[in-house]
Amino acid sequence: MSIDIINSFSCPLPKMDYNTIQLAHGAGGRLSAELIDKIFLPCFGNETLNLLEDQASLEISNNRIAFTTDSFVVNPVFFPGGNIGELAINGTVNDICMSGAEAKYLSVAFILEEGLNIEELHTIVISMKNAIDKAGIQIVTGDTKVVNKGACDKLFINTSGIGVIKEDIHLSAANLQPGDKILLSGTIADHGMAVMTVREGLSFRSKILSDTAALNGLVKDMLSVSKNIRAMRDPTRGGLATTLNELAKSSKVGIHIFQKTIPVREEVNSACEILGIDPLYVANEGKLIAIVPAKAADKILDKMKKNEFGKNACIIGEVTKEHASMVIMENELGVDRVIDVPTGEQLPRIC
Amino acid sequence: MSIDIINSFSCPLPKMDYNTIQLAHGAGGRLSAELIDKIFLPCFGNETLNLLEDQASLEISNNRIAFTTDSFVVNPVFFPGGNIGELAINGTVNDICMSGAEAKYLSVAFILEEGLNIEELHTIVISMKNAIDKAGIQIVTGDTKVVNKGACDKLFINTSGIGVIKEDIHLSAANLQPGDKILLSGTIADHGMAVMTVREGLSFRSKILSDTAALNGLVKDMLSVSKNIRAMRDPTRGGLATTLNELAKSSKVGIHIFQKTIPVREEVNSACEILGIDPLYVANEGKLIAIVPAKAADKILDKMKKNEFGKNACIIGEVTKEHASMVIMENELGVDRVIDVPTGEQLPRIC
Repeated sequence: MSIDIINSFSCPLPKMDYNTIQLAHGAGGRLSAELIDKIFLPCFGNETLNLLEDQASLEISNNRIAFTTDSFVVNPVFFPGGNIGELAINGTVNDICMSGAEAKYLSVAFILEEGLNIEELHTIVISMKNAIDKAGIQIVTGDTKVVNKGACDKLFINTSGIGVIKEDIHLSAANLQPGDKILLSGTIADHGMAVMTVREGLSFRSKILSDTAALNGLVKDMLSVSKNIRAMRDPTRGGLATTLNELAKSSKVGIHIFQKTIPVREEVNSACEILGIDPLYVANEGKLIAIVPAKAADKILDKMKKNEFGKNACIIGEVTKEHASMVIMENELGVDRVIDVPTGEQLPRIC
Repeated sequence: MSIDIINSFSCPLPKMDYNTIQLAHGAGGRLSAELIDKIFLPCFGNETLNLLEDQASLEISNNRIAFTTDSFVVNPVFFPGGNIGELAINGTVNDICMSGAEAKYLSVAFILEEGLNIEELHTIVISMKNAIDKAGIQIVTGDTKVVNKGACDKLFINTSGIGVIKEDIHLSAANLQPGDKILLSGTIADHGMAVMTVREGLSFRSKILSDTAALNGLVKDMLSVSKNIRAMRDPTRGGLATTLNELAKSSKVGIHIFQKTIPVREEVNSACEILGIDPLYVANEGKLIAIVPAKAADKILDKMKKNEFGKNACIIGEVTKEHASMVIMENELGVDRVIDVPTGEQLPRIC
């Protein structure tokens, strides 16, 4: 390794648990946090980035803009219920609208492997077209790179996106207050298990389908009922457990959830049992969590249930003063346990 | 391949020259154009995207925003004069500012290969920090994915970016008018040949260094002299020849350049001769082409020469009414020849 330019900024290599990148560094758990805290933030940190929200809120000439980026490397690229293309559109639309922004514009950057079948690419592109139409957004800029055969795995897609945040909307993971209710828009773990079952060759009487969907319509409905929603997140990598932990830590509050209220499809539950995976840690790609003031909870819930992507919405718990920065779940026997952030990687490359 | 969701939009697979992706589909030449025209635009096309500028100009609540994306897959990731990290910062800053926008915010998305040395990643991240400081911009959002060993080649970086375009700035590849002068900010082919020589194991008395640099300061200087610059482009993939062809086609004008005025470093020229490569088609990563009204050309040129990235700036030709949509070069013997767009890929993975 040779560096020919003398850099003005430098810092010694921090002490890390590993000398090389592990799959878990990309899994959203403890090793991901270590990589961000020790390598990325010391170099890139600033007031906006340090918030570690799923999107940046930027002030541009008196307008508030949400800006986000995500790369998609799911394997296989076609899975029950969707493919990498619509996942890339929906995922970035969701990251934008979780800030309360109206999603407007996307960029799409393809990294294609030499030898990729053009018919497969075309199928993926058509499903992206359907996804942008359904979400009501535009792709306005793009990039295509081709790498030699073997230098990437079929194709990777990066989507970045811009949305506009209205003046009176102020969502933030740091806003949670004791007494707030925790809403979940539907069943958990669908996407991750759809990918896993096809990878593991499992088959069930009823196929497990990915829940990939753009939630900007649902978010709009919810904000039309109350602008006082504290925060929204989509439980993707790391699942519900990791997302709730992030919220609890950002607001320095406790989160108390009830296992019996959390909807999991029967076949998803069976697959989790067979593979020894806890559905709390498995990604969705078409669900959201909203933390809302108790007074507004029922009204918002009613509205959610009328939207096709919120039919199974429910209240799964509340914010507490106790157990600050922790997530506690009462199981079906009435026993509390701590729901921690995973260290490792249960499910690589599910998005 | 199975698709489980019935798509509402569909279209038959268009007839293409190839059934599978070729390296040339990512090279910026004819096959790239075919992929964009037959696969991407029929699905994604809209008024903004169809312009095929290197960045989208968006109107957001009376502000004009430039938005761009680029993935970087250069091999090797360290090359003489730089590495993939600073290339990813500078490349996207340049794509933003070629629209006349002031570059403001970047996203960074890493795709890391399992097993990547963390010290190497740290070195790359530090050089990215130096690049953002030098360009005066911020990284405000990011993403990290890790793929299994062998599923990508060390690391890929996507950077997307946002800039603000002032009210009185209106650059476009469609603006060129006969009589305009063509300015080039310095020597061509440096970056591409720096990567190629290390890949081919060539050594020269004086090392060929990449010219990777952020040009936002140079652009600001130029616009301070004249707001009537017609268009700017950075000649990256496909080099000067491809970029000039794009400009000629967008404006339906001819472009006439003079070989003897185009600066090429001696060692770059030698490397091109040894490898049988025409420097006109080789990428820079720290140069720009500006098309300006003849009256303003000398003043803009003087200003460019005072900037560290425009020291060797020169006028290389002019826009003509004749030979519409074509680029003609007068060689050193006074003979004209057509400078066409390449079909194939001379230099894969140089950015």
